[in-house]
Amino acid sequence: MDLMAAARELDANDPLARWREEFFVADPDLAYLDGNSLGMPPRRTFERIEEVMRVEWGEQLIRSWDHWVDLPQRVGDRLAPLIGAHTGEVVVHDSTSIDLYQLIRAARRLHPDRNVLAIDPADFPTDRYIVDSIAAADGLEVRSDVRDLGGVAVAIRSAIDYRTAEIADIAAEAAAAREAGAIVIWDLSHAAGLLDLDVHGLGIELAVGCTYKFLNGGPGAPAFTFVAAPLIERLDEPFHGWFAQRDQFAMGPSFEPRPDIGRMLVGTPNILGLVAAECGIAVTADAGIGAVRAKSIELGRFGLRCCDELGLTTSTPRDDARRGGHLCVHHRDARTIVPRLVDEHGVLADFREPDVVRLGCSPLTTRFTDVARAMLAVAACAG
Amino acid sequence: MDLMAAARELDANDPLARWREEFFVADPDLAYLDGNSLGMPPRRTFERIEEVMRVEWGEQLIRSWDHWVDLPQRVGDRLAPLIGAHTGEVVVHDSTSIDLYQLIRAARRLHPDRNVLAIDPADFPTDRYIVDSIAAADGLEVRSDVRDLGGVAVAIRSAIDYRTAEIADIAAEAAAAREAGAIVIWDLSHAAGLLDLDVHGLGIELAVGCTYKFLNGGPGAPAFTFVAAPLIERLDEPFHGWFAQRDQFAMGPSFEPRPDIGRMLVGTPNILGLVAAECGIAVTADAGIGAVRAKSIELGRFGLRCCDELGLTTSTPRDDARRGGHLCVHHRDARTIVPRLVDEHGVLADFREPDVVRLGCSPLTTRFTDVARAMLAVAACAG
Repeated sequence: MDLMAAARELDANDPLARWREEFFVADPDLAYLDGNSLGMPPRRTFERIEEVMRVEWGEQLIRSWDHWVDLPQRVGDRLAPLIGAHTGEVVVHDSTSIDLYQLIRAARRLHPDRNVLAIDPADFPTDRYIVDSIAAADGLEVRSDVRDLGGVAVAIRSAIDYRTAEIADIAAEAAAAREAGAIVIWDLSHAAGLLDLDVHGLGIELAVGCTYKFLNGGPGAPAFTFVAAPLIERLDEPFHGWFAQRDQFAMGPSFEPRPDIGRMLVGTPNILGLVAAECGIAVTADAGIGAVRAKSIELGRFGLRCCDELGLTTSTPRDDARRGGHLCVHHRDARTIVPRLVDEHGVLADFREPDVVRLGCSPLTTRFTDVARAMLAVAACAG
Repeated sequence: MDLMAAARELDANDPLARWREEFFVADPDLAYLDGNSLGMPPRRTFERIEEVMRVEWGEQLIRSWDHWVDLPQRVGDRLAPLIGAHTGEVVVHDSTSIDLYQLIRAARRLHPDRNVLAIDPADFPTDRYIVDSIAAADGLEVRSDVRDLGGVAVAIRSAIDYRTAEIADIAAEAAAAREAGAIVIWDLSHAAGLLDLDVHGLGIELAVGCTYKFLNGGPGAPAFTFVAAPLIERLDEPFHGWFAQRDQFAMGPSFEPRPDIGRMLVGTPNILGLVAAECGIAVTADAGIGAVRAKSIELGRFGLRCCDELGLTTSTPRDDARRGGHLCVHHRDARTIVPRLVDEHGVLADFREPDVVRLGCSPLTTRFTDVARAMLAVAACAG
């Protein structure tokens, strides 16, 4: 059976296929393989944003702050079960960069005696730049070997490699870090809304992540911070913005942090961004993260089969348990192939330095036929 | 002539009256005196957000990042003339709290030899908390006398007092700071979109401010950072997020800041928030900041006349040149009066500790009759 026929059969038997109807699909003929970079819009987001603008902002005006004030935590509570966190352990706010900076500084204060941060030089740029910036400001050393955490105060690790899609051996790394007395902050940007994570079971205590990828929260949707309950009251974050203040509108002389996860808030949260994040999170929660992960594995298997049959080179792991939500195809002409994919084949994908065509498979919206078309198109362009 | 009749005549002769039609007014009978806390929604915001969601996000998907990437600066350029800044000196991003933290840390690096920050203990809470937090982290002294800036590295000053509405003598203070060798960061939250500011003429070099008050950018709309052109390349901000990186998608090994105001960006900007901010800023720009300020002065004069005729106590300045956009009425029962204003009189206002009824006058949406109704209602409740 050829790849397109196989893909059509997989689509026909896909228990999540109907969830694509929950999204606004402007062009059904587009194979969108970039949902890991910007998820497609859920239809409910359009309806809910319209309602928030007209009713909550327009009609209720300032009175809506009575319930908006808790929105970052309510959206966090909606996200929590998707990563195995408990109610009250997640808050949605600011950006991944800000949240990471905040959490590194807060974690470092738990370890004032240690002067080393650790991050893999192959990790995502913003994570590396932020680590370097804090290290330079505070005169800390940055260690690039994240397997050796002896003497390390805080290590930053991505749960999924943004290029190869390899899932880190989180449980083993977390155990080794505990052994070494180091605190690890996990970047779940490419994992949230895709993996059926169990943060507590894996030993994750602190994490950040974004909601605009697999969680379909919209362009630049706010990020999230996870703090395991026993650590919350011990964290002194660096900003001390007024949304983290215990009795915010007393506007008292000195800062006293809230006792709950709300202490990670900073300034006034953007409500439209939060509402869109909430809708995206809700779609995944409704579909069920277990089903999402199961389809993600099938999409990956099928993509690798395409690579094999078409003779394409990939470094995406073969082991289902170590493979995230995207497929990378290496080709020396990747940079020029990616724009040709959309112009000539209606396939939207990503180029990543130095030679990667990155094909993101977002389980609620990506069809097996999208994967087949994308791989066939890459093979044709590479030809 | 009684106050309501006088107000009706002022409304009839108000050259900005028609601009209220640019806004979505759900309840024409509501006297909304909180536009200084959350501006009303411009109609164009609804239309534009709908378009961005369906066309830019829904149809163009990831491709929209080609133009979204510059949106924080484009919105900044739209805002710039409203405060007298030049193109390329303003960027809209994150929150006032984050932007203030960032600018304090960046400014402090220009003065590594000085170990004192200065802020008035009566200034806005988030400003004070953030100053205290940085001082505690870096072992700096916080001086509360902002008239004595000798030895001060960075002083934080609000252009308009959030309670009394008094406008600071910015030019004199800026000159004194220069004399003392101190850097001042101005918080323009209550000034932007209201005063016809000339940052360069006044000697303002660094400022932050918010767009959800008089600029009607929507709940929690992103804030702005102003940096006078000669300082931009000298600023080393603390985060080093990937949106500040010169060649962002090269994802290179080390951080090199952009040469322009974009170096103040951090993580991925929230697009819905930015678009709403852009619409709000555009309405004020279209109406003309000079006309906005002229009406603001008239609203204030009329409000003070109401106070006088009704025997209400105010600490809002009489001098037009020193009075911002709100009116404060002091009453020992202010806390209980404010909820009664809306329940019994359809007047929405703010309570501020310890005894202030704060009536915000937003020139594009507040009618003189709203001010009259509010003052009559306060007088009735104060009985």
